[in-house]
Amino acid sequence: MSLTIKLTITPHIINLNLHPKHRTKIPAYSLGVRPKPIYHSNALIPILYNNKQPRMSQASVSGSVIKSSLIEPDGGVVVDVIVPECERGSKTLEAESLPKVRLARIDVEWVHVISEGWASPLKGFMRENEYLQSLHFNSLRMGNETVVNMSLPIVLAIDDETKENIGSAKDVGLVGPDGDLLAILRSTEIYKHNKEERIARTWGTTAPGLPYVEEFITPAGNWLIGGDLEVLKPIKYNDGLDHYRLSPQQLRKEFDRRQADAVFAFQLRNPVHNGHALLMNDTRRRLLEMGYKNPILLLHPLGGFTKADDVPLAVRMEQHSKVLEDGVLDPETTIVAIFPSPMHYAGPTEVQWHAKARINAGANFYIVGRDPAGMGHPTEKRDLYDPDHGKKVLSMAPGLEKLNILPFRVAAYDTVAKKMAFFDPSRSKDFLFISGTKMRTYARTGENPPDGFMCPGGWEVLVKYYERLQAEEATPAAVSA
Amino acid sequence: MSLTIKLTITPHIINLNLHPKHRTKIPAYSLGVRPKPIYHSNALIPILYNNKQPRMSQASVSGSVIKSSLIEPDGGVVVDVIVPECERGSKTLEAESLPKVRLARIDVEWVHVISEGWASPLKGFMRENEYLQSLHFNSLRMGNETVVNMSLPIVLAIDDETKENIGSAKDVGLVGPDGDLLAILRSTEIYKHNKEERIARTWGTTAPGLPYVEEFITPAGNWLIGGDLEVLKPIKYNDGLDHYRLSPQQLRKEFDRRQADAVFAFQLRNPVHNGHALLMNDTRRRLLEMGYKNPILLLHPLGGFTKADDVPLAVRMEQHSKVLEDGVLDPETTIVAIFPSPMHYAGPTEVQWHAKARINAGANFYIVGRDPAGMGHPTEKRDLYDPDHGKKVLSMAPGLEKLNILPFRVAAYDTVAKKMAFFDPSRSKDFLFISGTKMRTYARTGENPPDGFMCPGGWEVLVKYYERLQAEEATPAAVSA
Repeated sequence: MSLTIKLTITPHIINLNLHPKHRTKIPAYSLGVRPKPIYHSNALIPILYNNKQPRMSQASVSGSVIKSSLIEPDGGVVVDVIVPECERGSKTLEAESLPKVRLARIDVEWVHVISEGWASPLKGFMRENEYLQSLHFNSLRMGNETVVNMSLPIVLAIDDETKENIGSAKDVGLVGPDGDLLAILRSTEIYKHNKEERIARTWGTTAPGLPYVEEFITPAGNWLIGGDLEVLKPIKYNDGLDHYRLSPQQLRKEFDRRQADAVFAFQLRNPVHNGHALLMNDTRRRLLEMGYKNPILLLHPLGGFTKADDVPLAVRMEQHSKVLEDGVLDPETTIVAIFPSPMHYAGPTEVQWHAKARINAGANFYIVGRDPAGMGHPTEKRDLYDPDHGKKVLSMAPGLEKLNILPFRVAAYDTVAKKMAFFDPSRSKDFLFISGTKMRTYARTGENPPDGFMCPGGWEVLVKYYERLQAEEATPAAVSA
Repeated sequence: MSLTIKLTITPHIINLNLHPKHRTKIPAYSLGVRPKPIYHSNALIPILYNNKQPRMSQASVSGSVIKSSLIEPDGGVVVDVIVPECERGSKTLEAESLPKVRLARIDVEWVHVISEGWASPLKGFMRENEYLQSLHFNSLRMGNETVVNMSLPIVLAIDDETKENIGSAKDVGLVGPDGDLLAILRSTEIYKHNKEERIARTWGTTAPGLPYVEEFITPAGNWLIGGDLEVLKPIKYNDGLDHYRLSPQQLRKEFDRRQADAVFAFQLRNPVHNGHALLMNDTRRRLLEMGYKNPILLLHPLGGFTKADDVPLAVRMEQHSKVLEDGVLDPETTIVAIFPSPMHYAGPTEVQWHAKARINAGANFYIVGRDPAGMGHPTEKRDLYDPDHGKKVLSMAPGLEKLNILPFRVAAYDTVAKKMAFFDPSRSKDFLFISGTKMRTYARTGENPPDGFMCPGGWEVLVKYYERLQAEEATPAAVSA
């Protein structure tokens, strides 16, 4: 019995919904022996996304059949605007006949986010009334006078020429960076893209050097186009990580399958060290104490755009996998999946988005730490945001009342116990704070962090990444010399 | 009968709550003869604020006795934190013993605003949790899960030295610019004043040249102190205009006395021209058509800080008075009073404050025009805000659902009819748009605007103001030559 359970969940954690006939194909490692992780292969994709079980029909089955006690998604229903397979041909033909908008890479990430319902009840790129509510109130008022959280403008910028091409057409076709037709945007509305105001109200600064701004807003067009999306097929990246990209509906289905009575989400964009693990495990303990029988952890690394000096997604996924393999987190009560959103580094404004999207995926507890979604001020020597504002704003945010916010206690390296532990102010000198920057410096210089900071397997992944990076950085220099 | 009515309301519009024995002292002008306006004297102040009827006791009487059908103030009760006269002595003694915070002129304006309940349910300068909600959500969540609008941070800045002086004291005394003890701030909380973030989120820009920012935020301290106010006595300016400064409670009482079944507020910081009058009169007509029997106009010029090139308050009040004297607005259905708030020029963020404060004064209709609270971008040749955003944001703002927003149609000078009229796009060439800047240029150069733009009496006030101004500007130049 315990052998069977190990087989379905240990190696990849995301190994969901396996039909019994597939399950038997996986070699039966003996109990106690850790199976080789296969997250870098696409082995699971055909099982999860095979032709007999297209994503859409699964979704509609889950919508109509499963009785769930999970938290209600914003607006009551998880949005799914992916065209059913049977209509794909006709919609594609129609899209070809429409004026076209060429998407940047970042726009495709947002199409992905919207298409699966992370931004429910949003059904497409924001029209002006949604944009203004998001910008000024971080929330949208619904027809029934309820309010949902919506802190980041989810918008599509176009330039003057594209606007002119569209003319008075109401529907447009969205074309990916590689030229593929990805979606139709219907009943569009074009309005001004006041970049300065958008930046100031979203980031609370207009200082030069904000990664998302410099990469995607400054070069973008002076107009925004909103409308309802119809996405021609699920967005895939073919980077060996698509099997981690579970939609909110897939996650909800899995939480139900595991009979979760509490789901606690942990958003991250960094490698998992033992301090993170401590607080995730401690959260589970607290939830059990509160009377929950089966709290499930959603370890949910952000998979979209991140700034250049963050650790790349593929490396992080490999590192997370080692953490589970090494037993630092319990695979039976953990789901690892990728959150497809890009990162804004917009602190208190963005952390609301991170929390809100997880409601849509079924999480009713959200762990928040120091300075969530924060970064250093781009031009001054200080944090851009007050490190406590994130959790404060989150606890007061409109539309997030139904979510349980779990602020985390500070963990640091206890030099006496030689492990990560919750900081004890009564013996503060025993504790060593190892920031993300410090951790990356260790890994880059090949220096080992103190024992017990991170599991050895996970650490090795980081060291190897920085070795590769330095080798790559050295190569062009040698050529140019 | 009609003679009696004229006597109580015609001359100053703000001639409220006159006891019969005072009323008889006013000379009985014959019907049809306009009485000389006396708004520049303090004649009414002893009647309104005499010792036998201190403001506080009036307030508590009105709270307990008057049954009103006016719109409910935010939080259910109009805040009044002015110390009752009987406690003034003891509270002043206590205040003298406390650590002191020296107020700037702008802080006194805010003490005034808070003390009379314009910002209800706010009872003092914002603590951090209110500040953050205001900054991020433009609203405050109340204990009963209702939401009130609160778009501008109403905060008190202190510098490092003052913070150090306060130490761990919880209560502080607030001292006016002239050294008078004005108030006690209780149960204080000191938190960081991140000026850049405050400016960016409030104005949607951090460009240099924002009047309120340059005058009051940039030079202010790096800390904010929040707490509950107890104001030792009503704030007065002794500028001959205090009788126009009616509190929300006094306005509510007057609306009740007049048996208003609708109150429509018009916020302005400019002279009233006939286009304004047209839309105010048209609004009244529309309200009558809607079935209201006695709609009352609150003509409510802003009386706090305005930028240097705006027309000063005293001149505006004189001009408004002429407009009523000349019969452009109907004195029987109009109340002119001063709104004591300072001006931020923060467009869509500020217009919410302007509307919310008028709810507290009893207005259930709010007239909003093009680019409310807007100005030119300080460094670029364009409006700082999209001129339509103000009314759009207002119509969607949390906590303002109970207020009826009346967007106004554009009025312009009709060169055929030779009067201000609603713009008719079918004959757009017949219309002349006269902006505030244009109007001021006419008055400054002594050129007459087209007939019918403004009543002659009102126009004369402006021309004389600019003549005085030019004379004053010429004088120092002559001296220095």
